Amino acid sequence: MNIIIFIVLMTVTCWLRLCLYHFKFAGSFSLSKRNKIKKMLISEVNALGFEEFIKIFGNVVEMCPLVAAAVWSNLPFQDLESLQNSIETFVDQLPLAGKAGILRCHPDLAGRLAAADQLTDESKLEQKAAGLDDLTPSEKFQMDSLNTRYKDKFGFPFVICARENKKDAILKGLAQRLNNDKDQEIHTGVAEVKKICWLRLTSIVSTKSSL
Amino acid sequence: MNIIIFIVLMTVTCWLRLCLYHFKFAGSFSLSKRNKIKKMLISEVNALGFEEFIKIFGNVVEMCPLVAAAVWSNLPFQDLESLQNSIETFVDQLPLAGKAGILRCHPDLAGRLAAADQLTDESKLEQKAAGLDDLTPSEKFQMDSLNTRYKDKFGFPFVICARENKKDAILKGLAQRLNNDKDQEIHTGVAEVKKICWLRLTSIVSTKSSL
Repeated sequence: MNIIIFIVLMTVTCWLRLCLYHFKFAGSFSLSKRNKIKKMLISEVNALGFEEFIKIFGNVVEMCPLVAAAVWSNLPFQDLESLQNSIETFVDQLPLAGKAGILRCHPDLAGRLAAADQLTDESKLEQKAAGLDDLTPSEKFQMDSLNTRYKDKFGFPFVICARENKKDAILKGLAQRLNNDKDQEIHTGVAEVKKICWLRLTSIVSTKSSL
Repeated sequence: MNIIIFIVLMTVTCWLRLCLYHFKFAGSFSLSKRNKIKKMLISEVNALGFEEFIKIFGNVVEMCPLVAAAVWSNLPFQDLESLQNSIETFVDQLPLAGKAGILRCHPDLAGRLAAADQLTDESKLEQKAAGLDDLTPSEKFQMDSLNTRYKDKFGFPFVICARENKKDAILKGLAQRLNNDKDQEIHTGVAEVKKICWLRLTSIVSTKSSL
């Protein structure tokens, strides 16, 4: 009988800890829940306090909540384009090391984080949409070795807007872009970051609303 | 008997999920484990790839892994001071909105996140060291209302190096700094961010090692 009470207590403790973990970590910079609900109007965006704004837009540039935190200063926005412009201006003003830093905050495509289910919700959805969760062993091998060569050459990971490409185009792009020089690749990578950002923004806010 | 099997199964599933959560989220930008192990030499820091570097130094500026990701470009560092200088230079080069953004990535002192156990490991330790986890109801009320007034006035939270202050000094500083103007407070807040960053760095890397 004591054993049963012990097991029940263990189960209850376990569930309580699970709930704790869930509330502690889930929902931080997560779009996945947002996708299921009505898109925001720009007037609603403009009414957000900075804490809420960072929570909602903190991952439109992957793992860089600082970007959202900075552009909150430029509220109110006329429409979604002007929020995007504000983000692009902030990114463009960064020194080259800062732009490379933004790329370094991105995960490898079909890489270690994906395998360990440690991607942000946004990256997970995007990589899945491109078919990167469904590579053949030979494609996986090719992707891994190209990613490694790319990182060794440039010191940041290959970034491409996965929602606009399928796995074949991504593999081809990766092989081609390996021939660029570093400054060129920072420029190209950042242009992709801006595309990704725009698609993430449009999944949160209606593009039709303006002040 | 069936009930016992069911309960045992539930417990096992629960523990498996707990392990999953732990490996998924713990360790990202976490210093707590580092504190227990030997401090790194600067030569070891200089040997880090960017992914490992961001993992270790990603939270020396609270919730801003972009800063560590950017300064990795400046490797190798002569000593810990030169890593700190590199971070300070990056922060100083940000436009005013970016500096305010860095402050906005900080949690309130003794605020909602602390109450919900959602602070980063670093903030948790620092707030505890200042005695902020042990406020009387009257001190808590005073802290909350001052924090709210501060955020309403400036649009970012009050940031102070908690490891260098005790709760009385923090409450006094908060009340005093409420009289400053916004630009002055961005400047003062960023100076505190640099102090916090230095103390976090010294908890990871030996100050005595140089190339």
